[in-house]
Amino acid sequence: MSEVSCHIITIGDEILYGHILDSNSKWLSEEISLLGLIISRKSTISDKYNDIKNSIDKSTSKYNLTILTGGLGPTNDDITKKCLNDYFKGKLIRDNKTFNHIEKVFKKRNFDFTTKNKNQALVPDNCIVLHNQFGTAPGMLFKKNNNILISLPGVPFEMKSLFEDKCVKIIKDKFKLPVIFHRIIKTVGIGESWLSDLISDWEQNLDSNISLAYLPSLGMVKLRLTGHGKNLKEIKSKVNIAEKSLIPLIEKYVFGYDSDELENIIGKLLNRFKKNISVAESCTGGYVSKLLTSVPGSSKYFKGSIIAYSNEIKIKSLGISKDKISNFGAVSKEVVEEMAKNIKDKFNTSIGIASSGIAGPKGGTKDKPIGTVWIAIADKDRIISKKLKLTERRDLNIILSSINLLNLVRIFLKKY
Amino acid sequence: MSEVSCHIITIGDEILYGHILDSNSKWLSEEISLLGLIISRKSTISDKYNDIKNSIDKSTSKYNLTILTGGLGPTNDDITKKCLNDYFKGKLIRDNKTFNHIEKVFKKRNFDFTTKNKNQALVPDNCIVLHNQFGTAPGMLFKKNNNILISLPGVPFEMKSLFEDKCVKIIKDKFKLPVIFHRIIKTVGIGESWLSDLISDWEQNLDSNISLAYLPSLGMVKLRLTGHGKNLKEIKSKVNIAEKSLIPLIEKYVFGYDSDELENIIGKLLNRFKKNISVAESCTGGYVSKLLTSVPGSSKYFKGSIIAYSNEIKIKSLGISKDKISNFGAVSKEVVEEMAKNIKDKFNTSIGIASSGIAGPKGGTKDKPIGTVWIAIADKDRIISKKLKLTERRDLNIILSSINLLNLVRIFLKKY
Repeated sequence: MSEVSCHIITIGDEILYGHILDSNSKWLSEEISLLGLIISRKSTISDKYNDIKNSIDKSTSKYNLTILTGGLGPTNDDITKKCLNDYFKGKLIRDNKTFNHIEKVFKKRNFDFTTKNKNQALVPDNCIVLHNQFGTAPGMLFKKNNNILISLPGVPFEMKSLFEDKCVKIIKDKFKLPVIFHRIIKTVGIGESWLSDLISDWEQNLDSNISLAYLPSLGMVKLRLTGHGKNLKEIKSKVNIAEKSLIPLIEKYVFGYDSDELENIIGKLLNRFKKNISVAESCTGGYVSKLLTSVPGSSKYFKGSIIAYSNEIKIKSLGISKDKISNFGAVSKEVVEEMAKNIKDKFNTSIGIASSGIAGPKGGTKDKPIGTVWIAIADKDRIISKKLKLTERRDLNIILSSINLLNLVRIFLKKY
Repeated sequence: MSEVSCHIITIGDEILYGHILDSNSKWLSEEISLLGLIISRKSTISDKYNDIKNSIDKSTSKYNLTILTGGLGPTNDDITKKCLNDYFKGKLIRDNKTFNHIEKVFKKRNFDFTTKNKNQALVPDNCIVLHNQFGTAPGMLFKKNNNILISLPGVPFEMKSLFEDKCVKIIKDKFKLPVIFHRIIKTVGIGESWLSDLISDWEQNLDSNISLAYLPSLGMVKLRLTGHGKNLKEIKSKVNIAEKSLIPLIEKYVFGYDSDELENIIGKLLNRFKKNISVAESCTGGYVSKLLTSVPGSSKYFKGSIIAYSNEIKIKSLGISKDKISNFGAVSKEVVEEMAKNIKDKFNTSIGIASSGIAGPKGGTKDKPIGTVWIAIADKDRIISKKLKLTERRDLNIILSSINLLNLVRIFLKKY
């Protein structure tokens, strides 16, 4: 089977000049690789007419799939549609489904429906329209000989929804792709190189049809097993065998698989054991609650939080004793354990969790440098706390503290 | 003066396949733009011999400056140096400064000094070596007619140091560069197309040396003015004049400039007026507090929050009357205004803010569909609330509610 090649082109001066990070093309290349295509090249070009038209020409001649993102907005610097229409020699016509959708959105929000907005419903008559239910610019698909080009809006969530809802099926139908099966094993609480040491023997004996990738992100490492071949059942079974021999080596770090997130796993565990939870946050400043409530249906087990940033609130609203704070400091085992216990009692939940630490950039001392964080969890029988030594960066400390606290919850819940 | 064009090429499968985000090329393009070059294109290519050699050929023929990053490491998949040496028909010779440097590093760390490491000191005899004091792979500069190519290692801090210490001077000496000046104006509370309508007359009369770009993100639009010319003072003054005539047209939407963020601006306003703030969150689930506390030094004005996800907590901890909730519903003007007032009183702050809404995916009714959100702000004299009609997506509703609430705070504070 021959390779199916893909070229991802991002249009926009804001990426070209480095004003924003190109997270779209990272996301797209991951998704497209997962489908079994080969990403041959990624390019970022300016929103100049000739650059866009030349890139369309070269890319559609050379690559099986070209994905173009950006330049579909309503303003004057958005000219991707014009370039596509000129290159493919089309005529702009109104797409009624898009027009009605835009009209409805504007009516609902009580916005003026301007000519510029109406023009977003114009599409070349020789493209297949990919309806964009989350935005006003539709996606478009063009064919050239045996290759295809898909143009998507640059707004990340619109681009992602359109890709998932429409493009995946189109790509699978159009191309003869090798059979690929991925299994992602998600770990937390161990760094990439230690993980790699733990599984090095296993890795050396891995079936030759399976490849392993380490995908580290802040506080977590994903392991991706990818099986290649011709027969899905056979590949799945090979990946399954590899996974079975891998898990016992790293079991305590594994929190989930594939699309699992730590906060969803905690939600499932809380539902399973019929427990609910409340949070007392200091240094994490709301991020733990934000993660927990990002899960649809979290109102079933999450009752609420107190973010006690000042000592005054810790004393008045969380009932921490003044003496404890002056004797041990707000960042201490004693205070964080009492925060977890008290929020549980106050909000009448089965479990209370808490964070208190020095996020930085100021507030560090010799004994408690920036990055010192205490986290705790309490139920009616147990209180467990843990000291973390994190980084010197405020943003990283907030995220890492939150991930560590959620992982503490996960481990605690598994003991029920 | 003619434009000096630049092409940035990143080599490496880990970026091509989307396993890591390409932050190197973002950094490089910002730095190179600031020097006055035009970033004409950015490309990511695989570490295959032919891809690299073809890209070197095309890029050095077309662009004044080509920057190549990656593929200079000691392992077998690092072949950039070989490609460069072959393309420029050089002969590999030992660079003694690099050799001595590597030898010293390895001795210091007690590492084995292998042939692979020694080979890192080999360089083509027709390049200018850019000594890398932070790593083992030197940078290299090649000339082709009037164009130059610079090859840099992919490790971010090595690349950055080499660029700053060596490349900036080389580029400034080599090219006659125009002067470029950027000014970013940040707006919130207005969509791209309405903004564009508001300023269309202004845009049409814009000085021909200044270009305008719209940079939309969720709930916000940035306007970027870029001035080109020969004299920095003159360009700055032209951009300044354009800005002065622009601002009155969109003043109520402008929250900041350049690197300002909404949460930082609110922090500055709170500090200026010596006010502090507390938050009562329902549907935003902690995200408003997270944004406020992401600002270093926020503990000076942010005292804390209650996240009252359940009605029980709204009643018990925020003191909302049961009757109010049963008469008007938790998502109502009456309840959200009382939330803002009560958190202010309870936490003894000058300002209290609140959110209550239906984030989804469940909980919508005919009268209050998913995306219905009430936000409020209260001080000792005023209570202001606002109803939002947002989207059907939980994640977007949480972010948009939070941005709207922060914007309400900004507008409220400006009236002091």
